[in-house]
Amino acid sequence: MAETDVTDQTYLTDSPSDTQTLLLSLQKLLADPEAQGEVCAFLDGLNDTEIALLLESFPSTERERIWQCVPQSLQGEVLAEIGEEVRSGIMADMPVEAVTNLTQNLPPEDVTELLGTVNPEIKEAVIETLDTPVRDYVETLQGYGENQVGRFMDPDTANVKQGVSLETVQRYVRINQLLDAESQELMVTDKDNYLVGALSLVDLVKQNQEALVDEYMHMPTYLVDTMDTHEAATILRSKELSFVPVVNEAGILVGQLNSSEIMALTRDDADATLLGMSGVKEEDELFAPIRSSAKSRGVWLGINLATAFLAAWVIGQFEAVLSQVVALAVLMPVVASMGGIAGSQTLTVVIRGMAMGQIGGNNRWWLMNKELWVGMIGGAVWGAVVAVVAQIWFENAMITLVIALAILINMTVANVAGISIPLLLKRMGIDPALSGAVILTTVTDVVGFMSFLGLATLLILSV
Amino acid sequence: MAETDVTDQTYLTDSPSDTQTLLLSLQKLLADPEAQGEVCAFLDGLNDTEIALLLESFPSTERERIWQCVPQSLQGEVLAEIGEEVRSGIMADMPVEAVTNLTQNLPPEDVTELLGTVNPEIKEAVIETLDTPVRDYVETLQGYGENQVGRFMDPDTANVKQGVSLETVQRYVRINQLLDAESQELMVTDKDNYLVGALSLVDLVKQNQEALVDEYMHMPTYLVDTMDTHEAATILRSKELSFVPVVNEAGILVGQLNSSEIMALTRDDADATLLGMSGVKEEDELFAPIRSSAKSRGVWLGINLATAFLAAWVIGQFEAVLSQVVALAVLMPVVASMGGIAGSQTLTVVIRGMAMGQIGGNNRWWLMNKELWVGMIGGAVWGAVVAVVAQIWFENAMITLVIALAILINMTVANVAGISIPLLLKRMGIDPALSGAVILTTVTDVVGFMSFLGLATLLILSV
Repeated sequence: MAETDVTDQTYLTDSPSDTQTLLLSLQKLLADPEAQGEVCAFLDGLNDTEIALLLESFPSTERERIWQCVPQSLQGEVLAEIGEEVRSGIMADMPVEAVTNLTQNLPPEDVTELLGTVNPEIKEAVIETLDTPVRDYVETLQGYGENQVGRFMDPDTANVKQGVSLETVQRYVRINQLLDAESQELMVTDKDNYLVGALSLVDLVKQNQEALVDEYMHMPTYLVDTMDTHEAATILRSKELSFVPVVNEAGILVGQLNSSEIMALTRDDADATLLGMSGVKEEDELFAPIRSSAKSRGVWLGINLATAFLAAWVIGQFEAVLSQVVALAVLMPVVASMGGIAGSQTLTVVIRGMAMGQIGGNNRWWLMNKELWVGMIGGAVWGAVVAVVAQIWFENAMITLVIALAILINMTVANVAGISIPLLLKRMGIDPALSGAVILTTVTDVVGFMSFLGLATLLILSV
Repeated sequence: MAETDVTDQTYLTDSPSDTQTLLLSLQKLLADPEAQGEVCAFLDGLNDTEIALLLESFPSTERERIWQCVPQSLQGEVLAEIGEEVRSGIMADMPVEAVTNLTQNLPPEDVTELLGTVNPEIKEAVIETLDTPVRDYVETLQGYGENQVGRFMDPDTANVKQGVSLETVQRYVRINQLLDAESQELMVTDKDNYLVGALSLVDLVKQNQEALVDEYMHMPTYLVDTMDTHEAATILRSKELSFVPVVNEAGILVGQLNSSEIMALTRDDADATLLGMSGVKEEDELFAPIRSSAKSRGVWLGINLATAFLAAWVIGQFEAVLSQVVALAVLMPVVASMGGIAGSQTLTVVIRGMAMGQIGGNNRWWLMNKELWVGMIGGAVWGAVVAVVAQIWFENAMITLVIALAILINMTVANVAGISIPLLLKRMGIDPALSGAVILTTVTDVVGFMSFLGLATLLILSV
């Protein structure tokens, strides 16, 4: 054992710090326009993931200064790591030679990612320059759709065959320098390259070296290359997997997903749900320029405006009662708002359940029934509370009755809509996280205004 | 190489299927109340994560039938895996002996998880029965708060010392049977147990066996045991880490987080954001009984009701103008709704940025300025669109002017509120994902109604 005099402090301060600390340090350096040398020195100690996150954490002016400091050896990896929007900002107008340089020594899945950003002519030209095995891999990856698992896999797997000893496998790995830094398992294939199992590195090291691979290999959960990434994310997340082999539909091993790819895939999928539910496009990154943010958020605002006018039109049908009883105009938003919240609570729970693969088959009827009751109980309780407040405020028994009933109706409908809308959308092949919220609010607004003002017309105007 | 005649099919159908398929198969079996034997046979082939997810995917009656079939050897692990609510349902009224049996051969972090559910007397009694090393570990873990990293770590790390060859390390691992299935790295510590580096299993296998540990060890990103789990999730997610050592504040190695713990931690953290933004408590699991769901969602509905009444009160201040111009009541929700959507778009982007550690230092001023402009541009564009529709509908220039101005004001305020509210909440130590949405809607409702009806009072009533 080395008896060096090195204390923990020396090591621990050398360690990469958390992202907030990195961000603040870099902000300080960038504040001085002359300090480009210091910025470069700072980036020198960081890895590709850290630099990628920092690039995404600054507006475009600073982003350019940071990019100029990214060590050449990391540029390709950093670009593969960052979001599409930021990448196309950096790669715009990059000449063929520059793109070619970036793709040297880059793993095929990263090359594919980069080539997705450049125009077709540059793509063609760059593929020509790649070495044969990499070019073959890149062409395979390009064959997959943008949302297919195959597009994101690492096609360069480490395989061993059955029937050999662990000791032999270890030697084989060393001689062929098989594993890359992220590997956790060796794939076991038969002579035709069909996946037959996997051997964990832990077992490779820990078990008796004379034992055969067969004794310790297990059948891992695998993904099929043509699978949709959202579906894959559901499996990866629900099984907490950090490494999976990818096979084609015949069962032949074609690649693997390593832990960083899996973390990125599940994270992006969860992000898409969060953003989708608020009507933000994934391209709308935090530091996007004003114009592109305004533009990308416009679609959702436009859809919302249409539904808001639909709700306004519903209200417009009841002008007669509104002009007679102004208290209705005052209380009207309360009915819509309670329905909106109740519905979106259900929607969120359902969408999360879908993301974990928990909803399917006949349990939808159980859930529908449950939400019906939760809605009615909530509607009755909160309807009563609102009735008390309305009675004290307006001292009009009819208004009190009308609002209590309207809240009961709207909250019940809202909860049932919160589960039926995502189920319907899913059946229609539409992502419920993307459009569920806007449809739901439309329903709760329209039902809320219609039940409240409709009941008022019936019970108050006709009296 | 073994020349067996086994085709891919044989193997691949043996592999665990995706969660949806498992769910549907189990549903079919449970439909027959007599088929308990088949249910047990079905569960026999599954692992703890799969069984845990299935248990969470059924209401309590079916859940009990499933639980009765969980193989004894997996019961402890399954319970540690499932959510607190489901667990306490199963463990309610469990006698001391049953809990003691569950904790046998369970890793300390799982024992700690289980003991968090039972009452203090049972906890004491069970801890007494544990073997010394496990008991010590459990007591250490119990010393951490519920949201501290230390509570979730695996305290049983695999350490080696500097200055020895890879070959020696491999022998040492085999003799002491050091690694568990999820390990990806060996920790390197000095004689006082300070963390000085880590050696990946890949390097351990791949590199020249005569080389010293020192040559291939690297300083990994580590976490501190007292760190908040939300902060930890930010680091793990932004760096795509799937394995980290945990040290105490002095730098001494105290544990490690394996990939499944990391995936669970980051997933739960992302879920908390999604649920929090819709006002759903984490305990409100999909298949919770009606009564507990109704109860757990009540808090948020109550808060929302209070803010809805605040908005109603604001409207009530303008009864004079509303009773004269009923068109205002019709258009009023459009103003509030556009502000609400614009604000929540900003809020979502900001909360995601916070979860990635991208917001801090002086970039908040850049973001504030950006959102101000995005809000003004959106407000001007959509205000103009709304004005056209309103003019065609009501043919009243004053109403048209008032609504255009109100939308401009409300959308600008909404976007600025979408960034300032989460920043303020964070500074006050409150989770913005939890309360940001309700505060934001209150602001956009109040500002929307006030600007619209206030401007109408000024411009229409006074004419």
